[in-house]
Amino acid sequence: MVDLEDPELTVEDRHHLATVLRLRDGDEMTISDGLGRWQPCRFGATIEPCGDPVLVPTPTLEVGVGFALIKGDRPELVVQKLTEMGVDRIVPLTAERSVVRWDAEKATRQFRRLERVAREASMQSRRVRLPVVESVAPFGSVADAPGVALAESGGGPVDLARPMLLVGPEGGWAAGELSDRPRVGLGPTVLRAETAAMVAGALLTALRDGGG
Amino acid sequence: MVDLEDPELTVEDRHHLATVLRLRDGDEMTISDGLGRWQPCRFGATIEPCGDPVLVPTPTLEVGVGFALIKGDRPELVVQKLTEMGVDRIVPLTAERSVVRWDAEKATRQFRRLERVAREASMQSRRVRLPVVESVAPFGSVADAPGVALAESGGGPVDLARPMLLVGPEGGWAAGELSDRPRVGLGPTVLRAETAAMVAGALLTALRDGGG
Repeated sequence: MVDLEDPELTVEDRHHLATVLRLRDGDEMTISDGLGRWQPCRFGATIEPCGDPVLVPTPTLEVGVGFALIKGDRPELVVQKLTEMGVDRIVPLTAERSVVRWDAEKATRQFRRLERVAREASMQSRRVRLPVVESVAPFGSVADAPGVALAESGGGPVDLARPMLLVGPEGGWAAGELSDRPRVGLGPTVLRAETAAMVAGALLTALRDGGG
Repeated sequence: MVDLEDPELTVEDRHHLATVLRLRDGDEMTISDGLGRWQPCRFGATIEPCGDPVLVPTPTLEVGVGFALIKGDRPELVVQKLTEMGVDRIVPLTAERSVVRWDAEKATRQFRRLERVAREASMQSRRVRLPVVESVAPFGSVADAPGVALAESGGGPVDLARPMLLVGPEGGWAAGELSDRPRVGLGPTVLRAETAAMVAGALLTALRDGGG
C-alpha cells in the first residue's frame, strides 16, 4: 500500500517485515499500491524495485456486504474475513433494530480502525486491491441502490444479479426495512450477525471467482 | 440437548434461560435432544412439554470440514461458525507442517471445550442435530477416506461429490500430503487457516441446502 514510483515503508510495516517475517537486506518482497498494482522489490534501508509493475485487472463484478453494527470486536472480525475473501465493498449499517449505535466520535475512530484491519488483511492475503470500507451508513442510504438484496430467512439463493448483500441486526430487519425489497436466504440455520456477513462474503466471492 | 421424555435443565442452561434470555414461568421454549428431535415446552421449576415432539429428518448428505490445528482461540471460532452453518462433522487435524501440537492432556481438554462450543452454537442457531466434533486426528487417518478433498490453491470448485474438505496449516500441505489426492480451490485470495475452514463450511452447506 505504497507509492510504487517511490516506495517507502511505514515504521510499522518495516518492523513487521524485519522482526516478524525476518526479512534481511536483499530479500525479495512485493509491494502494492492497494489499487491493483504490485511490483517485486528488494528489502533494505531503501526499497529497490527489481522487476516491472504488474496491474491486476479490476474484478469482472464488484461484490459487497453491508452489516448492521454488532458489539465488541466483531466488526473487525467481519472486515478481516471479508477482505481475505476478496469482497470489494464493506459497509457498516445502522438498522431500525440495531442495539449498537456509534456516536460521531466512535464512528470516526472505528472507521479508521476498520480501514487499518482491511489494509492488514489485504497484505496478509496478498490482495493488491484494497476493499472500500465505508463509514457507518443509515440503512436507507444503501438499501435502495440497484443490485442490493437483504439477507433474510426464506429468501432465494445468492445471485450475482444482486451483488450487494445486507445483513441485519441480531433482532432481525424491521417490517418497513424488509418491505418488498429483494431477499436472499443464507441457509436453513440461524446465523449470528457476524457469521451471516461472512457466509454472504464467501458465497458472493465463490460465485464470482469460481474455484481457484 | 436433553432427554425429551424427562427434560431436565443443567444449572448453566437454566441460568442462561432465566437471566440472559429472561424467560418467566409459563413462557414457551423448545428443547432438543441434539439428535434431531425437538419439542415445545413451558419454562418453570419443571419443564413441561406442551406439544408433540418433532423429528427433523437427517440431512440428505453429511458435510464435514477438517482443519489443521491453529493457535489461540481460533479452533473455538471455527467450531462455532461451522456449527452455525450446519456442518455435520468437524475434525481438528495434525498435519506435517502443523506448528501447533496438542499433548494428550491438552487434546482432551480442548476436545471437551470444542464440544461445549458446538453445543452452545447449536442452541444459538436452533440446530437440533449436534455436529460430531472429533478429537484431534492425524492427517493420514482422515485423508484417504472416500469423499475427502484437500483445500489447495488451484484446485477445482467445491463439489458435493467430495463432501469432506480438509484445510491445511498456515505453512500449507506438505508434498506427501498433497500427493495425488483430490484438491479443491477456495478462491484466488490467500486465506488464513480459520477463514479457509469457514469458507469451506459456507460453500458445502450452501451447495447442500441451497438458499432458504
